[in-house]
Amino acid sequence: MVDILHRIAVERIEPESVYDALTTIDGLAGWWTEDTTGDAGLGGTIVFRFPPGGFDLKVIEAVPNERVTWLVTGGPAEWIDTTIEWRLRVDGDWTVLLFAHRGWAEPVEFMHHCSTKWASYLMSLKRLVETGKGTPSPHDVRVAEFD
Amino acid sequence: MVDILHRIAVERIEPESVYDALTTIDGLAGWWTEDTTGDAGLGGTIVFRFPPGGFDLKVIEAVPNERVTWLVTGGPAEWIDTTIEWRLRVDGDWTVLLFAHRGWAEPVEFMHHCSTKWASYLMSLKRLVETGKGTPSPHDVRVAEFD
Repeated sequence: MVDILHRIAVERIEPESVYDALTTIDGLAGWWTEDTTGDAGLGGTIVFRFPPGGFDLKVIEAVPNERVTWLVTGGPAEWIDTTIEWRLRVDGDWTVLLFAHRGWAEPVEFMHHCSTKWASYLMSLKRLVETGKGTPSPHDVRVAEFD
Repeated sequence: MVDILHRIAVERIEPESVYDALTTIDGLAGWWTEDTTGDAGLGGTIVFRFPPGGFDLKVIEAVPNERVTWLVTGGPAEWIDTTIEWRLRVDGDWTVLLFAHRGWAEPVEFMHHCSTKWASYLMSLKRLVETGKGTPSPHDVRVAEFD
């Protein structure tokens, strides 16, 4: 099993703002994909769609301002049953966000792509909470030919 | 051992352009850090410096338009003896670049940070070869508090 790992930090932004961006349909639509629907509450399934396809993610953990975990229940074969974890903590004036997409069976080329693409969406999330405006799909940066 | 993996692709750009950006001091200074010096040839050591510090990387493999590998000989303790691999291939109108920073002892928080930061520099490399202008340090995007 291999994992995609990332980390960002935002200055003078409370963890509540980041947690909201991860746990509300409006928040998620503001940085990942505008086509976000479903139930973002604990136990619910969030439906993310992009021009090439999408993902169905079940919210299996949600501790306000601390942690969110999703289980992938729909999407590309490589994603099924993987988990996506978000961990928040405060460090002085900064809110730190640790990201892990865990449980990839193999480090396939698609995993390399998803690692880069996740980073670009995390930067979009950072811009959203810092400036009020992210770059969710379909306004995201293309990193590859099949994007 | 854990690895940071990324992938980008550039359209209607020959692999020669990407290879040049990885194997010349001017090319490297155009996307990673403007403060790049040293010897970028096979067996040479390239010296990359950033405001918070930097890395000394030895070029241990260089196959024109196909592959480049660096061994980390200087820098943060977590980086020493890790390798950074670049693999190029052509796929139709696209040049695909696979990146791997291999040999991290543990998935420490600094590794999460470096994964995100590498993605931002890969996007800078992509812009450099596509438009002639990247965003190397000190013009890079901050992703964390210690950037």
